[in-house]
Amino acid sequence: MIKKVDHIGIAVKNLDEAIKVWESLGLKVEEIEEVKDQKVRTAIFHVGESRIELLEGTSEDSPISKFIAKRGEGIHHIALGVDNIEEHLKKLEEQGFRLIDKEPRMGAGGAKIAFVHPKSVSGVLLELCQRD
Amino acid sequence: MIKKVDHIGIAVKNLDEAIKVWESLGLKVEEIEEVKDQKVRTAIFHVGESRIELLEGTSEDSPISKFIAKRGEGIHHIALGVDNIEEHLKKLEEQGFRLIDKEPRMGAGGAKIAFVHPKSVSGVLLELCQRD
Repeated sequence: MIKKVDHIGIAVKNLDEAIKVWESLGLKVEEIEEVKDQKVRTAIFHVGESRIELLEGTSEDSPISKFIAKRGEGIHHIALGVDNIEEHLKKLEEQGFRLIDKEPRMGAGGAKIAFVHPKSVSGVLLELCQRD
Repeated sequence: MIKKVDHIGIAVKNLDEAIKVWESLGLKVEEIEEVKDQKVRTAIFHVGESRIELLEGTSEDSPISKFIAKRGEGIHHIALGVDNIEEHLKKLEEQGFRLIDKEPRMGAGGAKIAFVHPKSVSGVLLELCQRD
């Protein structure tokens, strides 16, 4: 079952400058974390039951750096919070969705995550995310 | 005050096909509405306290059709729910944010809405939205 919008991931060139912008909008940064596996530094803002995650690539071959080189800064992905990610992925595969991750992997903060390809989902890079 | 992610707006070429995709993901369409003022047809899915809004342009000069012609299908904007939109816009203007709407206008479902230019907000087309 899909429970909520877990987070919105936004690709930014300079995390420290972007934090200032989003704080000026009226949000407050809660955590800054480096996810070495994904070559990103992320700043997390809580907004109701969701989060906004600003993402800065930590090297040129980071997916975030490549995204910015191609499309500029902006929304990179959205993540929907689910309660049983393995079951959800199985259902999606049966229905012909193109999965980037057929099995969940570990994301920031110990969440189980998996990505679905934008070609399957109206051009949206979609993440499923289960936090326990 | 920013209360929640009100909605995520996604530009799609064909609304009826996109509804099938998002229903296959496990969501249920709640409303389909035409907003003539903005030249869009929209399908609304509730997800926790937020919504996903699929947007199809109803003419070639619709902002959604232009967006798709330039960038393809994908996430068009995000909307944050606020409790006093006039006050919020005033604060943003004072801080140098580039506002597309200096005064709120009426959006779908009687909400007061206003857009902030992506150049000010990490490449994100940001909507503020107040529902009473």
